[in-house]
Amino acid sequence: MRHPTDTARRAVQQVTATARHSFGSLLRPRAVTPGMAPGTLRPRERPPEFPVRMQMVRYDPDHLVEAELHSVADLDKVPEEEMCWIDVVGHDVDLIATLGERLEVHPLALEDVVNVGQRPKVEDYDETLFIVLDLIQCRDPGPILVKEQISLVVQEGLLLSVRERPSDVFDPVRSRLRNGTGRRIRTCGADYLAYALIDTVVDHLFPVLDRVGERIETIETSLLEDPTKSDLDELHRLKRDLLLMRRSAWPLRDAVGGLLRGDHELIEDETRVFLRDVGDHIAHAIDVIETYREMASSLVDLYLSSVSNRMNEVMKVLTIIATIFIPLTFIAGLYGMNFEYMPELGIRWAYPALLVFMAALAGVMIWYFKRKEWM
Amino acid sequence: MRHPTDTARRAVQQVTATARHSFGSLLRPRAVTPGMAPGTLRPRERPPEFPVRMQMVRYDPDHLVEAELHSVADLDKVPEEEMCWIDVVGHDVDLIATLGERLEVHPLALEDVVNVGQRPKVEDYDETLFIVLDLIQCRDPGPILVKEQISLVVQEGLLLSVRERPSDVFDPVRSRLRNGTGRRIRTCGADYLAYALIDTVVDHLFPVLDRVGERIETIETSLLEDPTKSDLDELHRLKRDLLLMRRSAWPLRDAVGGLLRGDHELIEDETRVFLRDVGDHIAHAIDVIETYREMASSLVDLYLSSVSNRMNEVMKVLTIIATIFIPLTFIAGLYGMNFEYMPELGIRWAYPALLVFMAALAGVMIWYFKRKEWM
Amino acid sequence: MRHPTDTARRAVQQVTATARHSFGSLLRPRAVTPGMAPGTLRPRERPPEFPVRMQMVRYDPDHLVEAELHSVADLDKVPEEEMCWIDVVGHDVDLIATLGERLEVHPLALEDVVNVGQRPKVEDYDETLFIVLDLIQCRDPGPILVKEQISLVVQEGLLLSVRERPSDVFDPVRSRLRNGTGRRIRTCGADYLAYALIDTVVDHLFPVLDRVGERIETIETSLLEDPTKSDLDELHRLKRDLLLMRRSAWPLRDAVGGLLRGDHELIEDETRVFLRDVGDHIAHAIDVIETYREMASSLVDLYLSSVSNRMNEVMKVLTIIATIFIPLTFIAGLYGMNFEYMPELGIRWAYPALLVFMAALAGVMIWYFKRKEWM
Amino acid sequence: MRHPTDTARRAVQQVTATARHSFGSLLRPRAVTPGMAPGTLRPRERPPEFPVRMQMVRYDPDHLVEAELHSVADLDKVPEEEMCWIDVVGHDVDLIATLGERLEVHPLALEDVVNVGQRPKVEDYDETLFIVLDLIQCRDPGPILVKEQISLVVQEGLLLSVRERPSDVFDPVRSRLRNGTGRRIRTCGADYLAYALIDTVVDHLFPVLDRVGERIETIETSLLEDPTKSDLDELHRLKRDLLLMRRSAWPLRDAVGGLLRGDHELIEDETRVFLRDVGDHIAHAIDVIETYREMASSLVDLYLSSVSNRMNEVMKVLTIIATIFIPLTFIAGLYGMNFEYMPELGIRWAYPALLVFMAALAGVMIWYFKRKEWM
Amino acid sequence: MRHPTDTARRAVQQVTATARHSFGSLLRPRAVTPGMAPGTLRPRERPPEFPVRMQMVRYDPDHLVEAELHSVADLDKVPEEEMCWIDVVGHDVDLIATLGERLEVHPLALEDVVNVGQRPKVEDYDETLFIVLDLIQCRDPGPILVKEQISLVVQEGLLLSVRERPSDVFDPVRSRLRNGTGRRIRTCGADYLAYALIDTVVDHLFPVLDRVGERIETIETSLLEDPTKSDLDELHRLKRDLLLMRRSAWPLRDAVGGLLRGDHELIEDETRVFLRDVGDHIAHAIDVIETYREMASSLVDLYLSSVSNRMNEVMKVLTIIATIFIPLTFIAGLYGMNFEYMPELGIRWAYPALLVFMAALAGVMIWYFKRKEWM
Repeated sequence: MRHPTDTARRAVQQVTATARHSFGSLLRPRAVTPGMAPGTLRPRERPPEFPVRMQMVRYDPDHLVEAELHSVADLDKVPEEEMCWIDVVGHDVDLIATLGERLEVHPLALEDVVNVGQRPKVEDYDETLFIVLDLIQCRDPGPILVKEQISLVVQEGLLLSVRERPSDVFDPVRSRLRNGTGRRIRTCGADYLAYALIDTVVDHLFPVLDRVGERIETIETSLLEDPTKSDLDELHRLKRDLLLMRRSAWPLRDAVGGLLRGDHELIEDETRVFLRDVGDHIAHAIDVIETYREMASSLVDLYLSSVSNRMNEVMKVLTIIATIFIPLTFIAGLYGMNFEYMPELGIRWAYPALLVFMAALAGVMIWYFKRKEWM
Repeated sequence: MRHPTDTARRAVQQVTATARHSFGSLLRPRAVTPGMAPGTLRPRERPPEFPVRMQMVRYDPDHLVEAELHSVADLDKVPEEEMCWIDVVGHDVDLIATLGERLEVHPLALEDVVNVGQRPKVEDYDETLFIVLDLIQCRDPGPILVKEQISLVVQEGLLLSVRERPSDVFDPVRSRLRNGTGRRIRTCGADYLAYALIDTVVDHLFPVLDRVGERIETIETSLLEDPTKSDLDELHRLKRDLLLMRRSAWPLRDAVGGLLRGDHELIEDETRVFLRDVGDHIAHAIDVIETYREMASSLVDLYLSSVSNRMNEVMKVLTIIATIFIPLTFIAGLYGMNFEYMPELGIRWAYPALLVFMAALAGVMIWYFKRKEWM
Repeated sequence: MRHPTDTARRAVQQVTATARHSFGSLLRPRAVTPGMAPGTLRPRERPPEFPVRMQMVRYDPDHLVEAELHSVADLDKVPEEEMCWIDVVGHDVDLIATLGERLEVHPLALEDVVNVGQRPKVEDYDETLFIVLDLIQCRDPGPILVKEQISLVVQEGLLLSVRERPSDVFDPVRSRLRNGTGRRIRTCGADYLAYALIDTVVDHLFPVLDRVGERIETIETSLLEDPTKSDLDELHRLKRDLLLMRRSAWPLRDAVGGLLRGDHELIEDETRVFLRDVGDHIAHAIDVIETYREMASSLVDLYLSSVSNRMNEVMKVLTIIATIFIPLTFIAGLYGMNFEYMPELGIRWAYPALLVFMAALAGVMIWYFKRKEWM
Repeated sequence: MRHPTDTARRAVQQVTATARHSFGSLLRPRAVTPGMAPGTLRPRERPPEFPVRMQMVRYDPDHLVEAELHSVADLDKVPEEEMCWIDVVGHDVDLIATLGERLEVHPLALEDVVNVGQRPKVEDYDETLFIVLDLIQCRDPGPILVKEQISLVVQEGLLLSVRERPSDVFDPVRSRLRNGTGRRIRTCGADYLAYALIDTVVDHLFPVLDRVGERIETIETSLLEDPTKSDLDELHRLKRDLLLMRRSAWPLRDAVGGLLRGDHELIEDETRVFLRDVGDHIAHAIDVIETYREMASSLVDLYLSSVSNRMNEVMKVLTIIATIFIPLTFIAGLYGMNFEYMPELGIRWAYPALLVFMAALAGVMIWYFKRKEWM
Repeated sequence: MRHPTDTARRAVQQVTATARHSFGSLLRPRAVTPGMAPGTLRPRERPPEFPVRMQMVRYDPDHLVEAELHSVADLDKVPEEEMCWIDVVGHDVDLIATLGERLEVHPLALEDVVNVGQRPKVEDYDETLFIVLDLIQCRDPGPILVKEQISLVVQEGLLLSVRERPSDVFDPVRSRLRNGTGRRIRTCGADYLAYALIDTVVDHLFPVLDRVGERIETIETSLLEDPTKSDLDELHRLKRDLLLMRRSAWPLRDAVGGLLRGDHELIEDETRVFLRDVGDHIAHAIDVIETYREMASSLVDLYLSSVSNRMNEVMKVLTIIATIFIPLTFIAGLYGMNFEYMPELGIRWAYPALLVFMAALAGVMIWYFKRKEWM
């Protein structure tokens, strides 16, 4: 027979092991080789599990062309008055390098595009605005948080977005572009498109937070009813998830705030109102994250005190039983002694009298425990 | 026979379940669909439980007209020198959309009016000032906190207020308007009316805080006398309530501060003094919230140490009883052995001597415990 | 026979109940009726326990006149070059209203004078400077902290001070005025007098803090010697007192800081040096408060770990006794069995041999415990 | 026989009592009589234990004269181009008053010189710079921290330093003056001399911190090996020492920072570089203090968990012994019953069979505990 | 037989002792003699374990010369348009003094070069920029953190770097210089070389952090499976390591931020972009450090609650066993009494009936424990 909690432990352990594959790398810092020249593009160690894709959308208020690019060479004919959005999915150092050279992106920015795991930030390289975001999603089973770096390179009339994994994150924006003849997203420039992408990425925080909130409520109900060790492990994991989200959200807030306050010439006044709205969403997400962190801490306290309470209850039962029966057992043992001269043993009413005395003793003790409110 | 604490647990659980309906949504972030175009007004999932109402008050220092509006079309005849207050209760996306278009409100502001659950804030859209507030009230039984978003759209000569649920929150202001011929509320513009509404909403925090304070005091007395597990659960719920109020109060303070420091042309210098007073009330509320949070934490500590103390007391009783009787029982057991050659058994005075020895042993132990201050 | 700790508990409870009368209201926010017009003066619910008094001191460098005023009408003959200090003790809404009208005090300030329980603050109404302070004193028995709002209205050549209760707080200042012919307090204006009153109020914090410090030291000695539950309750109360003082001191610091940085025309440069000194005293008091708060927290930890230690010691004694005697008792029980064929029972040296074996077993165990440092 | 920990407790208590003499007053706020006129010089309650000394050094780059002053009257012949340093040790209200009058020091500054226990600060009185510092030293046995207020009055060509107790703190500076013909300390003015004294006082923090670090390391080793209650008491005292140092260091940092940022005309640009260096030293000291505070907290946690662990180990031993022997004792008791008809008692192999059964039962239990990793 | 945990304890102790050699000095403040003249170069107490080395690299875009310098005299022929990098390894007060004089470095900077253990900082001495960095590396076994101060003196066309110990830290930069004909590192000035060295030092944080992250994950898995005391000790050491890294990283961030914001004429605009990148790396490292610190705290909580849980489980087993058998043993003892008149003893079915009763009693108790969820 295996102990039941062993199986539970093993399950927890397995989930944790699975989680570490994605998680570990989430919380660990980016890989760094000290002393490398800045702007060095380091190929990733593990080969990518999917082919690199490069999608282009070119549009002006009236027309829109979508195309799948196969090499950077296909790029060189964008007319002045059009907007061009290039969306690269996957990791190909050579492709990024060629693109970077073609678009005259600063080597430090290119390095940050390739060496994923950067802090969210906005950097201003004169003609180019370089934005790093964290896209956080919730994957089953687990649920496990998955983080992906999204890099945006914004230039006059051009936006380059680089993602780590194929997903449908940007599909709503693409469809708004397709169906939006004459709407703002088609008439505004690269700054508004960048805003739309940032907004989409930030909005992905909310379903994740909603799920975290659900888990917190489930744990809370469980704790108020019947606390188990697995609640605590779950709380520990929740706190780690919140820590991760927090580490993404705070720098992003600073970055968007900097974008708002700064005087980047790429950001039109019209777009500023929308960026303020995104900043507001991030502030809201941070509020929720911090509230959840406090609730998780409060739940840990609740758990610990529940365990204390239980132990207290167990101890009381033990003490009551022991305190009643140990003296009685002693008395019984006394008259179990084999001394030859024990006058009481010969008295006829001694045995019933002793029984009555024992019952009285037990009664007194029970009364005492009742008064102490232990029973 | 059911265990008594089971019933208590069940009751707690039920209250919690009820609370979650209102609470859960309070602490959870607003619902978001990533990738939606900004300014999209999303109809609410559940149909509203009451009809939408739109009340208009038009006044100048000498006249006041109140009217129930049935459609936005009824609006279009407000003369220049009058003030117009439109108070919408309930949630009707089409109504808000038409109103927004009619009053030329920015789509982002309209989105925030409809998608309730926003962070308290003040936003400046040139001619329009958009204000989001949280109205927090305390509902029996429970007591359970109920949060409601109140949106104010302030323009020259016009104030639009949108509330979630019908209530009498704004009735005192309405009655001050009616009876206030020649008073400040009738002579000042939309900014003073906005101040009056903000002030009313902020002042609703104080009765709630007063009730929280009462609960804290009750728990404190209970803890100093006789701590129970339900005190802890109540403390946990109090901390959550305070967390919620805090999340509303801090952003509001920043918002009102921004209103004061900013140079919104809608805000007259005369009104600024009053806004400073509101800011002062919020600061006071925050002070009280933070003080209560610290007191709640301190009470959790007090509870935990009371539990520790009790366990200690229980352990002492167990130890005293066990330590006195276990050796005595051993001695009795010794002379209960059936060895044929146990010379003591035949000695006449052995039994009384043993009794005396046992009493002496117990006495020594009691003396030891007294010295150790365990008794 | 009543359990001794019951009496202690009851005493604690009584002190707490007494304290709540004054305390509860100290920590609870001011009473508020949402929606009231600003500047509404609300009469207090309970009638005052003492008659309202209004004392006036009029002085210039050479002359000083003191008078007891009975109505506001007695006021109207102060010449230009004199200073006039009106000190109102008690709570009379009509009196304050008439005074306010007479001195042209802003209704918001008047409201704050009447509705006591405000946050310490400094407000600038053009010609008038309005200052709210908290006077904190320590009353026996208990000791219990008592808080009182002191409002100062400063105008050119006039200072109005309103206090809640009759006391001798301002007597030293009054006596300095009387005996100060030619001194600074007689030659300077209302700003210096206001400084003198603020300084007096702030200085009242120090004896209270000194007493708190004394209590902390007493508790510390008690904890290092012999921790009891009442130490913890006392610590809890101390923390609450410090929380209260903190809530008064921090806003006061901001207020005085604002007075220093601001350019209120009523504040002469000469007085600014003295205000800086007051600011310094508040900063000192805050330092002490925060240090005491940390010490109190540290003492709670010390208490909890002392309780843990004690429990550990108790457990060790129990374990030692049980571990030594339980096996011995088992052996004795073994030879107390009534089997017919137990060859050992007939052996002559079996009994002494068993005794020796038992002693050896006990010895081994004692050695084991010694090695484990449990004894 | 006295319990050994009693002696330890008593020792701790005695050290604490001794410490309180110096300590208590360290953590307690300065003595204050509310309502006193500003600038009142209050004579100290206890007579000083040593005579007041006043040493003067007068120097220019080429000459240096040292003299012991006996009254302020000896002062009045300092030529313009010389620097004069007056170092007063001890507490004599009249002397300070006369000196203050002679040097035209502001009464508020004089008050702070006399009423020691001020917060470290820098105050600018036009022609005079007034600096308050805390000199913290470590005295054996204990070790006990000793705090002393050092006040510096800086004027053009003059520096007045007032100390509480005779010590050799400033001897190195005095000797640098003597031997420094032509060096910076002789050619620069009062600001550089003030810097030299501040630097000396700040540098005294480091040996104290070094000693605290040593104690922390000793406690850490002791905790990892064998935690005792006295470690905890020592940690508590360490935390109090760090609290004290912190309360001196933070205001000093602000003060020196203000000196650097301000435009006091007494501070030459040349000296600013040196003041920046002092500021750096204070920042370093604060870093170390905060690190030590965190380490001390971490050690308290380590201690508590060690105690928990031990208790756990003790409980396991008790449980193992009790769980093995209680059932066995019951079985033995069973066959010790005196029923007339107990067929097993007559069976010849019953006794050895029972012994085997008991051994098997114990074996199963031991196996169970092994599997649970309790043994 | 030695107790197994003793050996573990001893091992821990040994590692700690070893660690203290390097560690102790890491956390302890720099050695200081109060009252010394600023700029005093104090020879180190222990003689260095390796000879001092001074390497020079002179380069312009086209040529590069490397040389080993033996005395400062070898220096004096650097032409204007060349860059010169002098890398000193080891500690030789005279050499530093001569170099400092030759390069006209401010005595305060020289003092900081020699008296290692400074806080990371950037100081601006007009023509010279003085930078102090902490190089943190991870050494086996242990792993133990090793800290080394790296001082950079930056002047027009010259960079002096002083390190404590020989290592290959700067080899990658040296090799980039050698192979970089025409690249940025050869065409830019001393500011870019300084950036390259700072970047290298900062990047050394990441492998250390990665290792810390690995240890945290190992401990986490261990805690979720089977918590042991050594996990806690390891956590304690991790927290100390993080404290150390934190103390280096925060001041460095301020320093680099100051470099960016300041207008040091030595820093070209071109280099500013790269410095911003370094600042970003430090911010990233700080994020990771703070996240790890929170995780470590969370793991300590997890450990403590695991211990609590275990104790609870142990207690339950004890209580179940004791509660079942203590009453049964009492009953057996009862019928083991030797009273002459105990009628039950003679009844034929009494013994089996009692056995059945006992079994039933045990059954009821087991049912009770099952219902309480203790089994």
